[in-house]
Amino acid sequence: MPGLRAVVAHGGGPTAVLNASLAGLIDECRKTGQFTSVEGARFGLRGLLAGDYIDLFSQPPALIEAVGQTPGSAIGSSRQELEAADYERVLSAFRRRDVHWFFYTGGNGSMGTALELQRCARASGYDLGITGIPKTIDNDLPVTDHTPGYASTAHFFAFAARDVGEDNRSLPSPICVLETLGRNAGWIVAATSFARQHDDDAPHLIYFPERSMSLDRIAADAESVYRRLGRVVIAVCEGQLDESGQPFGADVDRPGVAQHRLASNLGHTLAQLLAASTGLRARAEKPGLLGRSCGPFASLLDRAEAYECGRAAARAAMNAISGNMVALCRESNDPYRSSTFLTPLETVAHKERRLPLEWIASDGNDVTPAFRDYATPLIGEVPGYPHLPG
Amino acid sequence: MPGLRAVVAHGGGPTAVLNASLAGLIDECRKTGQFTSVEGARFGLRGLLAGDYIDLFSQPPALIEAVGQTPGSAIGSSRQELEAADYERVLSAFRRRDVHWFFYTGGNGSMGTALELQRCARASGYDLGITGIPKTIDNDLPVTDHTPGYASTAHFFAFAARDVGEDNRSLPSPICVLETLGRNAGWIVAATSFARQHDDDAPHLIYFPERSMSLDRIAADAESVYRRLGRVVIAVCEGQLDESGQPFGADVDRPGVAQHRLASNLGHTLAQLLAASTGLRARAEKPGLLGRSCGPFASLLDRAEAYECGRAAARAAMNAISGNMVALCRESNDPYRSSTFLTPLETVAHKERRLPLEWIASDGNDVTPAFRDYATPLIGEVPGYPHLPG
Repeated sequence: MPGLRAVVAHGGGPTAVLNASLAGLIDECRKTGQFTSVEGARFGLRGLLAGDYIDLFSQPPALIEAVGQTPGSAIGSSRQELEAADYERVLSAFRRRDVHWFFYTGGNGSMGTALELQRCARASGYDLGITGIPKTIDNDLPVTDHTPGYASTAHFFAFAARDVGEDNRSLPSPICVLETLGRNAGWIVAATSFARQHDDDAPHLIYFPERSMSLDRIAADAESVYRRLGRVVIAVCEGQLDESGQPFGADVDRPGVAQHRLASNLGHTLAQLLAASTGLRARAEKPGLLGRSCGPFASLLDRAEAYECGRAAARAAMNAISGNMVALCRESNDPYRSSTFLTPLETVAHKERRLPLEWIASDGNDVTPAFRDYATPLIGEVPGYPHLPG
Repeated sequence: MPGLRAVVAHGGGPTAVLNASLAGLIDECRKTGQFTSVEGARFGLRGLLAGDYIDLFSQPPALIEAVGQTPGSAIGSSRQELEAADYERVLSAFRRRDVHWFFYTGGNGSMGTALELQRCARASGYDLGITGIPKTIDNDLPVTDHTPGYASTAHFFAFAARDVGEDNRSLPSPICVLETLGRNAGWIVAATSFARQHDDDAPHLIYFPERSMSLDRIAADAESVYRRLGRVVIAVCEGQLDESGQPFGADVDRPGVAQHRLASNLGHTLAQLLAASTGLRARAEKPGLLGRSCGPFASLLDRAEAYECGRAAARAAMNAISGNMVALCRESNDPYRSSTFLTPLETVAHKERRLPLEWIASDGNDVTPAFRDYATPLIGEVPGYPHLPG
């Protein structure tokens, strides 16, 4: 018996598989027969506040399936945060449209918004169910084993480290800095370790935002590798900090409200400082947002899990279980198998899970085997290149 | 009747298909039966001067075939330029090894080195045949229709513009600068135009190193697109210059001798300036060397043509035709078909072919259809993404 009107919105940066979650949600909502409509708020909270929606049920299933394979956000996203008064405005909009379920796909900030909206709905006596759908390339949501979006970006940067490394092997630079995404968490930069098949493969040094690091230490590490190999590829996260907790003097960007200030040219800044400090030539590459949007590098596993998270959110609504985020449980490592479960929004809202310190090698410039065990099923093997002898 | 001993070396930056030329050369040299040996000089001129060689004939054909599919340079490359005395040292090394043919794979600078080596050999009465094999992602060699290496990098940046554009459509930035490779030539940045399938697709503005451009003009263009779409993706070459012939105040790198000084953070610098000038947020992405090394984006056509250029060089040696570079002739556009021919080293040495000015739109911020006609067979179609209506 249809009757439930639902809205879905996206919060924060898009990923290579965010649209797969949207497709899974729509497919499952259609299948249950309990929903009268599922509308997408265009550009996230902006659409919610402006009443700008797209009727997703009226879209041909073949289009939803096709869109589910694309990177980006098919309904648009936003970094806007809600002011106190905005929550009432969103609820008013829901009241007018008779919307009683809200699906919000995002990271820990978005789950905080969902939690606050739930509190406001309860306080004003409006019957609103809420389900969060996990999404972040940064992999910094707690509770869930990992987050849809991470594996595809990890895959991209592992290949990027391999191929930039191959270039650097062919024409030693001598210092090459590869800047990765990841903000305050080292999950993505750690994934570059998958580029290595042989002892001398890049990246030779990996740093983590969880471990601040002085320029002197990085320069000493780089010189040591350079003396051994005549070249050095350094993987560093955009959110890396020096020993005083600053981004090495890099330019700082200010995206949205209440987000951490993030350097916008950390790799280049570090390369310039290393060149000055070591006397070696240094340059930096920064694939940047290409690392979260590059369609050809989207991971099939990531896409399948993102789709399942969307379906699980629909089932939660169907079963009238509100106030949770869908999460992934690793059922088995070999063969890899995962399932979804629900975790209360309180367990994830505004909480950040950074790379465990025990997964960072004691020198602070590499991962430990435990990270490899964790990430192998997600990233898969990065094929090495054949080389001539010598 | 075997007897000819040959050496091959690589000059300048590697490409995604440089090793395909190496494989084509070795395969054809083996086939003719006229060569006693083909040795690779490790790391280009450095190997020639230091006597560091690898015997390529003794490598298993299956390994050569496998290496021929990899990006980078299997024998290593170098940006070192020869001093006057070095030419004599190279000839002495050849004399000692009884080497009478030299294959040099590179761009216009490398062809200049080959030409000078030929002059020195003649002056000293040493019988040395020389054949150049074309290689440069920049596509700036004259005479040849295009250069092996270009199509793969063009392909990479067309996809990069599409996917960064999709990200920017999902979460408008509002100004996104995509920095491409290309040094002083606009061939690669022009290729980003292939990312577009619809009117509002990225890149919305493309600038060319052939046309210097003031910050004010770029800012005005960007604001105009932003007013229309609420976002703007700008493709700009690493070698773009402002109206005073300077790289907008960007940091300048100094790779090798006699190369043009090249900015190492042009995209970021431009983004910072545009943000200050327009008051809009701006950030830059710089895939950088990944654009020439990314294995998964290597073009099959590019690889096949690179292989054929290597084979053609072997045939030139077999026929004792010295002093030329292999070049590509476009036999037919539809269906696309190319062949190789020989052009005297004098016609390409130190000569740069930049993007024809008539292939740049009059406003200086787009290509004309003539560029598309030229590049379509090389880059191919970049599939567009399906979108929800509205």
